[in-house]
Amino acid sequence: MRDVAIVGVGLTKFGERYEVGLRGLMAEAGLAALQDAKISSKEIEAAYASIMASGRLTGQEHVAALLADQMGAKNIAATRIENACASGGSALMQGYLACASGMVDIVAVGGVEKMTDVTGSEATTALGGAGDQEWELAQGITFPGLYALMARRHMHEYGTTEEQMASVAVKNHENGYKNKYAQFHKLVTVDEVMKSKMIADPLKVFDCSPISDGAAVVILAPLEKAKKYTDTPIKIVASAQASDTLGLSDRDSLTGIKAASIAAKNAFAQAKLEPKDIDIAEVHDCFTIAEVMAMEDLGFYKKGEAAKAIADGETRLNSKLSVNTSGGLKACGHPVGATGVKQAVEVTWQLRGEAGDRQVKDAEIGLTHNVGGSGATAVVHIMRRTN
Amino acid sequence: MRDVAIVGVGLTKFGERYEVGLRGLMAEAGLAALQDAKISSKEIEAAYASIMASGRLTGQEHVAALLADQMGAKNIAATRIENACASGGSALMQGYLACASGMVDIVAVGGVEKMTDVTGSEATTALGGAGDQEWELAQGITFPGLYALMARRHMHEYGTTEEQMASVAVKNHENGYKNKYAQFHKLVTVDEVMKSKMIADPLKVFDCSPISDGAAVVILAPLEKAKKYTDTPIKIVASAQASDTLGLSDRDSLTGIKAASIAAKNAFAQAKLEPKDIDIAEVHDCFTIAEVMAMEDLGFYKKGEAAKAIADGETRLNSKLSVNTSGGLKACGHPVGATGVKQAVEVTWQLRGEAGDRQVKDAEIGLTHNVGGSGATAVVHIMRRTN
Repeated sequence: MRDVAIVGVGLTKFGERYEVGLRGLMAEAGLAALQDAKISSKEIEAAYASIMASGRLTGQEHVAALLADQMGAKNIAATRIENACASGGSALMQGYLACASGMVDIVAVGGVEKMTDVTGSEATTALGGAGDQEWELAQGITFPGLYALMARRHMHEYGTTEEQMASVAVKNHENGYKNKYAQFHKLVTVDEVMKSKMIADPLKVFDCSPISDGAAVVILAPLEKAKKYTDTPIKIVASAQASDTLGLSDRDSLTGIKAASIAAKNAFAQAKLEPKDIDIAEVHDCFTIAEVMAMEDLGFYKKGEAAKAIADGETRLNSKLSVNTSGGLKACGHPVGATGVKQAVEVTWQLRGEAGDRQVKDAEIGLTHNVGGSGATAVVHIMRRTN
Repeated sequence: MRDVAIVGVGLTKFGERYEVGLRGLMAEAGLAALQDAKISSKEIEAAYASIMASGRLTGQEHVAALLADQMGAKNIAATRIENACASGGSALMQGYLACASGMVDIVAVGGVEKMTDVTGSEATTALGGAGDQEWELAQGITFPGLYALMARRHMHEYGTTEEQMASVAVKNHENGYKNKYAQFHKLVTVDEVMKSKMIADPLKVFDCSPISDGAAVVILAPLEKAKKYTDTPIKIVASAQASDTLGLSDRDSLTGIKAASIAAKNAFAQAKLEPKDIDIAEVHDCFTIAEVMAMEDLGFYKKGEAAKAIADGETRLNSKLSVNTSGGLKACGHPVGATGVKQAVEVTWQLRGEAGDRQVKDAEIGLTHNVGGSGATAVVHIMRRTN
């Protein structure tokens, strides 16, 4: 398989975008990506669209054809990918494969979710579709409840505290404050997180990522042709994905996401790199406990040691490892299908040196970690600056 | 890219399967495919699951991880594909790509839909998600209404008659009568179709495919390793897909599916074959007019000539070209996400010579034609017996 690079990226403002619908969000991010790559839509040969719950949230399925149309790409192979909250990462992987295999040259990977046209309760119920409906959700647990179980177990086994988890939110709001695309531009303190409304004990509302609208698009090209479109191709050096049981009840452990550990191990092997080589990481902080587990699953910290390190500031901007420079799902927002693609957009900007106030110095290698549901899918990509 | 073959297939009975849920359907087809390929689930390296509207129909998204789990495949890359009614064809294409590229060897492609746990009205509304929600469905047209518009225009331009369309149903019920997996085992006459209840003028209920439950799984392997699993590998000699606008209002023509014409042209070019080389075809007869258009879009007949040929019996079993030997969507049933995969199962059985009472004599080359929604996606595969 040949080398593949990201040659263009586009992002919409994340948030409550009442003024725009699904197709408008796709057009906004899609056209931004085309302009960024200075490429004509006629050159796009295949598209992958990631969206999780558009059927329930908007009535619209079949969104890949819509993405292609909104980007002006006529009669191409356009395919929707859905792996719950990991849809974007999975779409990037399929786009990578389409290009790496030589099937096509130029691929658009677009993620989107329009979540605010329904009530919060309806959105939360739709998100529950990411977990095991028959064996867990239908029995009464909510989606935050699944992560609350993981948090409780992590606290029990490793002494992780609610304050440490709160520090994830504090850090990510700090980063999001510097990102004009972020849903929230608001600094929060550990005390504010601790005093916020309880959602699923021990997770409070400030431990949870929000309901968001947004879209993100990346354009891929063979590395050998990438210089035609950009001076700074971002090479994808690893693309790995793994699955697990939908339900928590069948898992080996509740204190980590096994699919993420496996995907990470495979990704580092593909890239011939180690966790210590990573400069920046966009990880899946759907809940604060999820970022704690991510740091451990990815091998950045030993089991049980990440929460203290995060609280100590080791993963703040331009510290030991800059994590969720975009603000993460927590502060940048979490339009579900867009998230995995947005992670790649942020890493691209960082590796190009275009991240403005939140730029990580000398960032050369970045990682994205995208988790579906309560961990039944995880996708890890590693990207590298090539110039 | 290397050659890929189908080495195992599994199918459930299609129909109103009130006794089994989504996971049960996947297990039933998945285990049948594993047994057919005489393969251990441990050998499966990637899975693609096609399902259209599970969120609205069952509450469950994220079904690829569930498929992998139900087949006993642990921690593999599992990805859901959704392209409306073409989900199965698109999943087969992604599975083909994963294997052909060398990324993995053994791939399971499983399609499923569980449609009968909601009312017929709810199912029809969910299916409307295949069309353009914002610009067409939300304005009041139904999904059958979109095909009724195409039928009316075809009648206007080419003199196609309602009786000729009815003959599609008559033929497909004849074939389905011989298929133990089919939803309907009932012969119908042109007169019965014509007198059946009007759904969207000129389409009557017997012009429409039914609401169905069912699942289908195929297992792919590199051709060079296929003999390990089967004496009769079925080589995939072409895999092509194209898109079009979601809405009919933006299309060049209403009397054909442009995406299907393009996918067909590309598929024949890949396979270095012509329409006259095809022995059997499973085509997307979601409505009888759709089979008429399919015959023309695929190049089997000139524009405006297919309806008469079908009525004359040219596409009946063991006639000039055997079309929809399974009974098609019309009589075998249309569990939406399963349909495109089921087409590949039927072609495999036919090319192996295992189709029993409905076996086409000396079938060597088969084609599948899977259309999403009102034609915004079309996927064409061509398969060939290799022994």
